[in-house]
Order: sequence, then C-alpha cells, then structure tokens
Amino acid sequence: MTFKLHDDLIRTCIEIQSFPLCRVLLNNDSNYPWIILVPERSDIKEIHELSAADRSILIEEIAAVSAAISSEFNADKINVGALGNATPQLHIHVIVRFKTDPAGLGPVWNAGAAQPYTAAPLDAMLNRLRRAFAKTAYSTTPRSQRDDPGIR
Amino acid sequence: MTFKLHDDLIRTCIEIQSFPLCRVLLNNDSNYPWIILVPERSDIKEIHELSAADRSILIEEIAAVSAAISSEFNADKINVGALGNATPQLHIHVIVRFKTDPAGLGPVWNAGAAQPYTAAPLDAMLNRLRRAFAKTAYSTTPRSQRDDPGIR
Repeated sequence: MTFKLHDDLIRTCIEIQSFPLCRVLLNNDSNYPWIILVPERSDIKEIHELSAADRSILIEEIAAVSAAISSEFNADKINVGALGNATPQLHIHVIVRFKTDPAGLGPVWNAGAAQPYTAAPLDAMLNRLRRAFAKTAYSTTPRSQRDDPGIR
Repeated sequence: MTFKLHDDLIRTCIEIQSFPLCRVLLNNDSNYPWIILVPERSDIKEIHELSAADRSILIEEIAAVSAAISSEFNADKINVGALGNATPQLHIHVIVRFKTDPAGLGPVWNAGAAQPYTAAPLDAMLNRLRRAFAKTAYSTTPRSQRDDPGIR
C-alpha cells in the first residue's frame, strides 16, 4: 500500500521537505517552532512496528531535527513525542520549548489553542527551517519542488 | 562523571532492571502501565546529545519496551515521549494507553494526580513487567540483585 499522509496532518501542518525516511512537516501553531516527522511507511501506528533498519534512520532524523532547531532557536529544551491517541498514523513531534512559552513546564499538547501562522511569518519560518535543515546530513529538495513533475 | 539517577526520578519511580543502555523504571502512577527509560550516561539532556551508537541502542530499547507492554497489557496505543521540561536528565516515557484511561485522547502529563501503587499491586505489576521484559532481547538481572554486592 502506498504511503499517504493522514488527513489530520494535512489539515494542521505545512509540508517542508522529505528526509530519507520521514516527511518533514511544520505544525501550524506559531506558539512554538514545532516539527512533525512522519515515516513514509503505510499502516504504521507504533515505533515498534517499523523495521529495525527504519528505526535506526528514524532516531537519526529525530536527532538531526532536534539539534538543528535547538541551535537555530536557542531552545531551552526540545520535546520529542510519539503520541497518536487521536491521529493513528505514526508521527513524531519535535518541539522547541522556552521557559517563557505558553505551556511553561507542562507539555504543549492540550496547553491551549493553536495560533496559526499568518502569511509572512510562515514564509519566514519555512525559510529559516529549510536553511537550518540544509546544514544537516539530510538536506534534500523541498517537497514543493520535488513534487512538481515539471522540474524533475 | 559517573551516571547517577536524578532525584526526581528516584522519588517518583521504582527501579525494575537495566538494559544495555538504559535504567528501566516504573513510574509510580497506577493509572497507567508507565515505563521510563533513562540512558545511563551523565550530563545528557537531549536525544541529540547522545552518541549515534547510543541512539541506535536507545531506539531499540524503546521499541522492545513498547512491543512488550503493548502485548502484555493489550494496549490501545503506546505513547513515547522525551520531555524533560522539569527534570533535566534525559528520560523517555513509554506508556500504555487505553481509550478508557483517565487522560482519554489527551497526553498523560498534566492529566491529573498520580495514583501511587499500594504494596500488593506494585509487586504484581513488577512481576508482570519483569516477565514481559524477559521475553525481549534485553533480559538482564534485576537491579535489586545486581546491586547487591553479596550476590555478585
């Protein structure tokens, strides 16, 4: 079965690019720099359902994003989570946390309503993330170009 | 520097055993079968601060715990999270979730006060977890025996 991004993630996120294993998304909540990694594998709900080979790539992609956004945003802490209680497709949150952010010492989930980006801040955030990810081992063509058959 | 378990984790958890990388703890909250994995490395706050070699072990230990407790408790979902907003030592939550549990579709953190185990249910839970983990690739001597110099 072909991988297809879950509708919940399409609705709440913006696609940034693809790493070797994961689709890389920005959660549309300007309260936090908030990346979501989705392994491009069909019918996977849990980390333990991935192959060991995929898991070894996954943890490196998590670490690459974590290091990149920690440095880029001067994070106080990175939060990593694979919950999926409401959206069953395996997806991993990698979130920049600040002591002053709306969730304080708590988790970001259920910490209040998302604040969607407006156009200019979204462009700025996407550019900043693409530059940060370009410094990792996983620099790839942005999704917007890769998916355009005209420039393949 | 020698690894030492953070005081917050000593206070809130019961040690079960050690895997090759991680100390394996039971969070003392009977609302959920709730394991915490702590890489036995000093001064590590983030997954990306571990070596790549340690990370490859970490993801396999997470997967082993996730598969074992999912099967043992017939989980509806496993939640995996590395937050650390309040307790800075890197620790990874691996939690059995049920649709009927107190946190519902939300995260377990901030979902209400912990319900500490009483003596008999704690013994039963520890025995059940040790049996489940003994079926994984990471069966090791329980901490209580390993740390007793009399039986080394």
